[in-house]
Amino acid sequence: MGSSETKRSDNYIMKLTSQWIAGFVDGEGCFHVGYYKSGQIQPEFTVVQHTRSIKVLYALKSFFGCGSVRQQKPNLWYYRVRRRSDLLDTIIPFFEKNQLKTRKKVDFIRFRWITIQCSRNNHLNDDGLKWILRIRNLMHK
Amino acid sequence: MGSSETKRSDNYIMKLTSQWIAGFVDGEGCFHVGYYKSGQIQPEFTVVQHTRSIKVLYALKSFFGCGSVRQQKPNLWYYRVRRRSDLLDTIIPFFEKNQLKTRKKVDFIRFRWITIQCSRNNHLNDDGLKWILRIRNLMHK
Repeated sequence: MGSSETKRSDNYIMKLTSQWIAGFVDGEGCFHVGYYKSGQIQPEFTVVQHTRSIKVLYALKSFFGCGSVRQQKPNLWYYRVRRRSDLLDTIIPFFEKNQLKTRKKVDFIRFRWITIQCSRNNHLNDDGLKWILRIRNLMHK
Repeated sequence: MGSSETKRSDNYIMKLTSQWIAGFVDGEGCFHVGYYKSGQIQPEFTVVQHTRSIKVLYALKSFFGCGSVRQQKPNLWYYRVRRRSDLLDTIIPFFEKNQLKTRKKVDFIRFRWITIQCSRNNHLNDDGLKWILRIRNLMHK
């Protein structure tokens, strides 16, 4: 965690409700699955905001108790959760309970499936990887 | 109301919670004040979505009981509330009760101020119009 993050975390953290988060993520959230040439599969949950609304990102971090807030561009920041255990134990159960309403729900379901496959190491064999990439290619469409 | 809208309205309408709507609008909503050369001031509340998520727009219309859903581009639809009484009696009180968390809240406060000024016909005199345009120019920044 960078010092700028530490400093900001000391400030007042606004409180969010589960339903507000579900609505906000329906608009602004992204369930992304990275695939690297090394063969690594990297599911990640991200919310991007202009610096003007950075407090919301820290509020999400505080609410979920995991992930990090970092700068992407001069006026753009993101909250991101990448750690597999945080995705499996916190983020995925949250959106199972507080269901998304837009078509982003379909992305979430595919994201969840891939994250679970990875937790079972199914991405380490050719057949498992092939299926993961098939599902991944259906996302964000 | 167009026939396509009537047809879609007959379908299942999903139920939304107030907090989900506040979160979703924090991400996807727009409080806009149009200014036309005729001197007309037109505050409007809009939410735009891809056709994939059009059900959410109809759910918003059903929830608020006002406004309309229309097509903007081939794959883009919007829910919009323009009628002054609907803004004053329904939309503005809703976001006073279910507060926005991002900087969009500042736009909402300016939008509310302008809408109230218009309801008092203050946009019809030069000084009132000047102040409304000043506040309008501060929005979305």
